[in-house]
Amino acid sequence: MEMKKEARIIGIDDSPFNKFEKGKPVLVVGTIFRGGNFIDGVVSTRVKIDGTDATKKLVSLINHTKFKPQLQAIFLKGIALAGFNVIDIKELSRKTKLSVIVVMRDYPDFEKIRKALRNVSNGSKRFELIKKAGKIQKVEIKHRGVYNIIYIQFTGLSLAKAREFLEISATHSLIPEPLRVAHIIASGVINGESRGKA
Amino acid sequence: MEMKKEARIIGIDDSPFNKFEKGKPVLVVGTIFRGGNFIDGVVSTRVKIDGTDATKKLVSLINHTKFKPQLQAIFLKGIALAGFNVIDIKELSRKTKLSVIVVMRDYPDFEKIRKALRNVSNGSKRFELIKKAGKIQKVEIKHRGVYNIIYIQFTGLSLAKAREFLEISATHSLIPEPLRVAHIIASGVINGESRGKA
Repeated sequence: MEMKKEARIIGIDDSPFNKFEKGKPVLVVGTIFRGGNFIDGVVSTRVKIDGTDATKKLVSLINHTKFKPQLQAIFLKGIALAGFNVIDIKELSRKTKLSVIVVMRDYPDFEKIRKALRNVSNGSKRFELIKKAGKIQKVEIKHRGVYNIIYIQFTGLSLAKAREFLEISATHSLIPEPLRVAHIIASGVINGESRGKA
Repeated sequence: MEMKKEARIIGIDDSPFNKFEKGKPVLVVGTIFRGGNFIDGVVSTRVKIDGTDATKKLVSLINHTKFKPQLQAIFLKGIALAGFNVIDIKELSRKTKLSVIVVMRDYPDFEKIRKALRNVSNGSKRFELIKKAGKIQKVEIKHRGVYNIIYIQFTGLSLAKAREFLEISATHSLIPEPLRVAHIIASGVINGESRGKA
């Protein structure tokens, strides 16, 4: 069965924050796209710096949006928001009944993450959530005729389906459009101006 | 000379606010588009409810963005932000060296505006700014093969040029894409969810 180019996908990213302000709420933006071109909506919530409320907040945000009935998948830019507020992607998928795809430009340095987590409460629990999210897969995504490598963790769908969602969304950059735009919005609203590459 | 489909345009809209909180800052979002499809960036500022700082704030926002060298025009959704914080579009155009186009779905009810302005400080000055913005022109814009009517005030360019900018940007709705998306972002960030039509 061919996937529709009009697939509704939500991409989620957090805004810039000062990592020393532990516990402070950070703006999180979700952009709902129809395929890789049309923004249908923007939703937002706040999660705490190095907190543990990211999964719960995202479940609520997604389940309450009016776009929910059409949504097919959730893209996350990395597995944590606002520092080490790690998302339990299996729980997110189960409670929203949606596929979840974590997109990373580089393969994560687990040793570095484990060390950093020593300074965060319940660091080992958080590390378990990262591991529980599943094997990190390298995928080649065609963007403007050229294949590029990104890394993903995913749940609720096959690798083939995940790749299809990624290719549909790679309209303007290798990063799926819902994530590129969520980043631009989150930083533009908080900093006054979005900067750098998404 | 043909206008490029890639023309960089900034669309500006404010976010929902409580009109009884006079003087309170309201989030204002600008989205920079390349033509009618590609979001290049998001910028933001705040202006006061029924204040008089809109022109100054927009001049500063636009002149300081890294996208400034490529910008060709400013779209405004109505001539005021945050209630009756009226924008002096001639000053905005002069100080940014950009064309300004105010887009309205309906012809404004000037009698109603004049009456409402009685309850705002310097109401008659504000009303003068609205008049100074120039004659309101009815334009027919082709969107998905159908002609629809919108109303505009503009400065710094010809009516023909203004119409061209509007047609380039009417990709997903009659409202230019930079304005449609600025609205979705501003309400999505403040309300948690963007709602209604843009």
